[in-house]
Amino acid sequence: MTRKIAILGASGYTGAELVRLIATHPNMEIAALAAERKAGMQMRDVFPHLAHLDLPGLVRISEIDFSAVDLCFCALPHKTSQEVIRALPRDLKIVDLSADFRLRDPDDYEKWYGNPHAAVGIQGEAVYGLTEFYRDEIAAARLVAGTGCNAATGQFALRPLIAAGVIGLDDIVIDMKCAVSGAGRSLKENLLHAELSEGYNAYAVGGTHRHLGEFDQEFSAIAGRPVKVQFTPHLLPANRGILATVYLSGEARAVHETLAAAYADEPFLQVLPFGQTPSTHHVRGSNFCHIGVTGDRIAGRAIVVAALDNLTKGSSGQALQNANLMLGEEETAGLMLAPLFP
Amino acid sequence: MTRKIAILGASGYTGAELVRLIATHPNMEIAALAAERKAGMQMRDVFPHLAHLDLPGLVRISEIDFSAVDLCFCALPHKTSQEVIRALPRDLKIVDLSADFRLRDPDDYEKWYGNPHAAVGIQGEAVYGLTEFYRDEIAAARLVAGTGCNAATGQFALRPLIAAGVIGLDDIVIDMKCAVSGAGRSLKENLLHAELSEGYNAYAVGGTHRHLGEFDQEFSAIAGRPVKVQFTPHLLPANRGILATVYLSGEARAVHETLAAAYADEPFLQVLPFGQTPSTHHVRGSNFCHIGVTGDRIAGRAIVVAALDNLTKGSSGQALQNANLMLGEEETAGLMLAPLFP
Amino acid sequence: MTRKIAILGASGYTGAELVRLIATHPNMEIAALAAERKAGMQMRDVFPHLAHLDLPGLVRISEIDFSAVDLCFCALPHKTSQEVIRALPRDLKIVDLSADFRLRDPDDYEKWYGNPHAAVGIQGEAVYGLTEFYRDEIAAARLVAGTGCNAATGQFALRPLIAAGVIGLDDIVIDMKCAVSGAGRSLKENLLHAELSEGYNAYAVGGTHRHLGEFDQEFSAIAGRPVKVQFTPHLLPANRGILATVYLSGEARAVHETLAAAYADEPFLQVLPFGQTPSTHHVRGSNFCHIGVTGDRIAGRAIVVAALDNLTKGSSGQALQNANLMLGEEETAGLMLAPLFP
Amino acid sequence: MTRKIAILGASGYTGAELVRLIATHPNMEIAALAAERKAGMQMRDVFPHLAHLDLPGLVRISEIDFSAVDLCFCALPHKTSQEVIRALPRDLKIVDLSADFRLRDPDDYEKWYGNPHAAVGIQGEAVYGLTEFYRDEIAAARLVAGTGCNAATGQFALRPLIAAGVIGLDDIVIDMKCAVSGAGRSLKENLLHAELSEGYNAYAVGGTHRHLGEFDQEFSAIAGRPVKVQFTPHLLPANRGILATVYLSGEARAVHETLAAAYADEPFLQVLPFGQTPSTHHVRGSNFCHIGVTGDRIAGRAIVVAALDNLTKGSSGQALQNANLMLGEEETAGLMLAPLFP
Repeated sequence: MTRKIAILGASGYTGAELVRLIATHPNMEIAALAAERKAGMQMRDVFPHLAHLDLPGLVRISEIDFSAVDLCFCALPHKTSQEVIRALPRDLKIVDLSADFRLRDPDDYEKWYGNPHAAVGIQGEAVYGLTEFYRDEIAAARLVAGTGCNAATGQFALRPLIAAGVIGLDDIVIDMKCAVSGAGRSLKENLLHAELSEGYNAYAVGGTHRHLGEFDQEFSAIAGRPVKVQFTPHLLPANRGILATVYLSGEARAVHETLAAAYADEPFLQVLPFGQTPSTHHVRGSNFCHIGVTGDRIAGRAIVVAALDNLTKGSSGQALQNANLMLGEEETAGLMLAPLFP
Repeated sequence: MTRKIAILGASGYTGAELVRLIATHPNMEIAALAAERKAGMQMRDVFPHLAHLDLPGLVRISEIDFSAVDLCFCALPHKTSQEVIRALPRDLKIVDLSADFRLRDPDDYEKWYGNPHAAVGIQGEAVYGLTEFYRDEIAAARLVAGTGCNAATGQFALRPLIAAGVIGLDDIVIDMKCAVSGAGRSLKENLLHAELSEGYNAYAVGGTHRHLGEFDQEFSAIAGRPVKVQFTPHLLPANRGILATVYLSGEARAVHETLAAAYADEPFLQVLPFGQTPSTHHVRGSNFCHIGVTGDRIAGRAIVVAALDNLTKGSSGQALQNANLMLGEEETAGLMLAPLFP
Repeated sequence: MTRKIAILGASGYTGAELVRLIATHPNMEIAALAAERKAGMQMRDVFPHLAHLDLPGLVRISEIDFSAVDLCFCALPHKTSQEVIRALPRDLKIVDLSADFRLRDPDDYEKWYGNPHAAVGIQGEAVYGLTEFYRDEIAAARLVAGTGCNAATGQFALRPLIAAGVIGLDDIVIDMKCAVSGAGRSLKENLLHAELSEGYNAYAVGGTHRHLGEFDQEFSAIAGRPVKVQFTPHLLPANRGILATVYLSGEARAVHETLAAAYADEPFLQVLPFGQTPSTHHVRGSNFCHIGVTGDRIAGRAIVVAALDNLTKGSSGQALQNANLMLGEEETAGLMLAPLFP
Repeated sequence: MTRKIAILGASGYTGAELVRLIATHPNMEIAALAAERKAGMQMRDVFPHLAHLDLPGLVRISEIDFSAVDLCFCALPHKTSQEVIRALPRDLKIVDLSADFRLRDPDDYEKWYGNPHAAVGIQGEAVYGLTEFYRDEIAAARLVAGTGCNAATGQFALRPLIAAGVIGLDDIVIDMKCAVSGAGRSLKENLLHAELSEGYNAYAVGGTHRHLGEFDQEFSAIAGRPVKVQFTPHLLPANRGILATVYLSGEARAVHETLAAAYADEPFLQVLPFGQTPSTHHVRGSNFCHIGVTGDRIAGRAIVVAALDNLTKGSSGQALQNANLMLGEEETAGLMLAPLFP
């Protein structure tokens, strides 16, 4: 049975990535593509790399007949997303890729995003979309909130360790490096090629990045007490890829064994042999996450490095994985593409 | 029926690209991977991006039982290739990705490659592997010679125009730009990141590049008289992609119509609307070739721009397309992946 | 004697490049920096790489006392430039980096730029700023019009050849590749890192790029009859550098000798030994232009390749070179910095 | 008085960078350039970007008359360097850029580099070349040992803080990111453009990188007790630039004030206003180091970010700065070039 799919926000990078992935899905068909400012255009004019696909034209959201849609991906900017979703049919299955439904507590949302939540009523319905840790809830959900790409990467490195109690909780440092597509297709000076290529810098230093809200919520829930990590994001001169270098107190072999055991049956999370470290190069364009663990010369310290593609496993691939669960499809359908190297 | 595939030269970029593509093929299974210097290793150690695949270990060619192989890709360096292929079973279907069997005339081979051909006996068997123009011969062939990536790009821009007689034959200029993976995984100073990134240069200027042998052979055959083009390759600071800017005398609209008509039914060759130009960005990682035609302010002059991925349509994708024909598979099987953008 | 310098448009790349170069000049001092939208800010906030310099704050043009200024660089967008310059004191020495005074004929200006010229009265005063060919006029000029970066590169390759009559005039092809800083610090989607890096494309194909106005004006004047070249610009995935591959009919040795003789005493124009080709990598950040000449396998055809840094020799370096002449300074003052490699 | 300079190892990146910088020095002249394997060649053939300079040809070290040399830069690989320096005249002033004389204790040397030191006799003479902290000793030294680029960057961030006792000593984490030129002009697979561009990875994870020997030696000496930091280097897809993100326990304002006070009079070390963070983009090609300090949401935690150009301030610029001191020249001579941006 072919599932009818709608994508709202089809003119951004995560929208295009959804189209790319769904094109290889055996049981999905794109029924509607919405992009308010580019309504009336064809997808090939907005994204020429999709020119070979037979796709519906871009329309406004208001033009879509949602009764003929099995599942809707919402790849809109945060804040817009909550307003749009509030107005969608209440029985429509939705995977939201924005930040709007990631935080369960409306106060937390307001603290990190600066505005009161406009759809508190449905916020409670949302399931946090980190597939490997919320499978059952996602399969049963109507609304799934895709995670931040930084948040996903850091959690893959840390969740089983916090759950198993094999690391200290008060001195976790996450040094994150994310490629530029993580910032979307937005016209900002620091995203220009001339401003970014051959350069490198940190930003949102000191605990101000919004994805900390997700770390706090999730890690504290697992630990059963407040956990606050240090987290510094950096902007990489590359188009795709995110890599977390995580500094921990804990016994490195135990860290490795815990992660290897936790992910032994996961199709997308690959724990490398002890002492090996991953590269973003080896996951590009794919839904895989590579994780490496190394001990330090300082006894009782360990380093976990996790790498994934921010647009795929960090966003649109995760979204499709969740949609598969929500629709009763094979979880890996459309997602087993090999990374593109070089 | 699953076809058993062997890949010789699996530790190079074209070998890895074949594995990436075949992994999505419905009816192919990789039965053997050979790499002389890395025999004994696993593919995941040579190419970590392929770690999720269940692949045979790397072996020496001499260890392969070719009686259990339906088709063999030979992704070895030129000169080595002819020696290896000479020693393979005479009834084994082979797609060679090297330069060794592209030129039909042994004297031409020696002129461009500097050494006498070591397998003249089977050189006559080889079919030139530009799929869209040699389909029937390829389907019936035992040995197919993959084209050069520059040669493929230039021919997609020019063959129908020469055949239709709509352009002048004595003032064709092909200005070619190819990304660095076209040079393979070889340790050369000019391929280092520090020597290439942020830089740009021409090389083999003045008619010395070996792919000219292919242009001469093919264009002259089509025209029925000698055709010599000017051809300057440049090294792009990028990993994948090749773009030809071709300067012609001819009426631009006629040029566009000729190409559009010739490729109307081709699944991989897309002629853009008149006046639009392609980008390598929009074909990366795919088997598509985008072609644009523009008129010039000088009457009677036209510009054709063609872009493809040198590792895919320019090499391993083309090879798989040919293998599909040789094995009676769907020609597009394993090859409809959308490009990766950004 | 220290010359007092004003820079209008100091918040763009060419403005910053002027500051970088003038910082090493023995006899120049920056007296005023104007940037309308950033007036009130310090240069270090706009360009942190200049933080070590003791510079005046950014002001509006109207705040500058031009009576205390010896020479003014105008690095404003075209069209704005003519309006600003029209209002400046009539005896102020000005080097304009925009396109506004490059074309002598107001009709040509309107044809290429689409609007009537707003300062026709002073257009006649302007001297075309290709230093090596207009030295005496520049030294005596009040207003010098900096050339386009494409226009400079193509002219360095071609002017002496047209003047000497050693090449055909009706089949010149200039295939140009320019790095992204040539487009300035403007917020356009195609200049984003994610849209440009790892990609490559032609633009303004078919004789529509405005720098053709300069080629037409200059080449026709030298030849004494209309000369129209074919010219295709391409956007390079790099920050700095421009490279022209020029296809000619002519005897290659004569072409090389003509260029070598013409530039024998030029401090910035270096003709490589016959058969060698330049790279943008080897001129980055400098005022040098490297030129190579190669013969083709087709008798009577030659290829000239010229490389320079679009922001330096193609724009701000040229402007400083001209200012030196206008002020009676050593022509090379502040301009002998070695290129930055790698 | 012009100082006669020799450079041994002139065919590597640090050798070429020395030539680039010395070319702007008012009182230095390059008297000899040695490169064993390229002896007999001209520098322009090895580094075309230096073609405009009038330089001596490349010779073997044995061909140099050191009696006519005032100071010798030794830019050779480690291990080679100690053997060469051992054989040089005992009164020759030498700035060594290798790792051979950085560690004072021969046992430490052997521990980190794996071989016994071959010139223990002169190891004691060497002064550690971190200019800002060893000025007097360097001015009086015969042999100065240039620091590692990672070691310099980390020390600029940390030395004044350890000396002032404002940070904890047992939980320092240095997350380092270095561009590819830090690995030199060596033919290694991981340095190829196709293997590095668009990718990102950590290496020498877990306390195995040799520059830790310098951190241990220096930080322990300052603190008066053993200090061991955690240090993870990463390879950046860029040609130049190194950035350290340092995680500390300490009060952020005190950290900022301590660094700002310590470097208030330093010409090359610039502490940004509190809360700002530096970028490698803004120091490229220059001898400047930008340092930013930020507090964390976790009380008592601070982040220091330091950025410099690994080839300039991290290597050849530092070497020239030291040479200036040793020869009684102005310390900043030849080193005030503005960074190249973009």
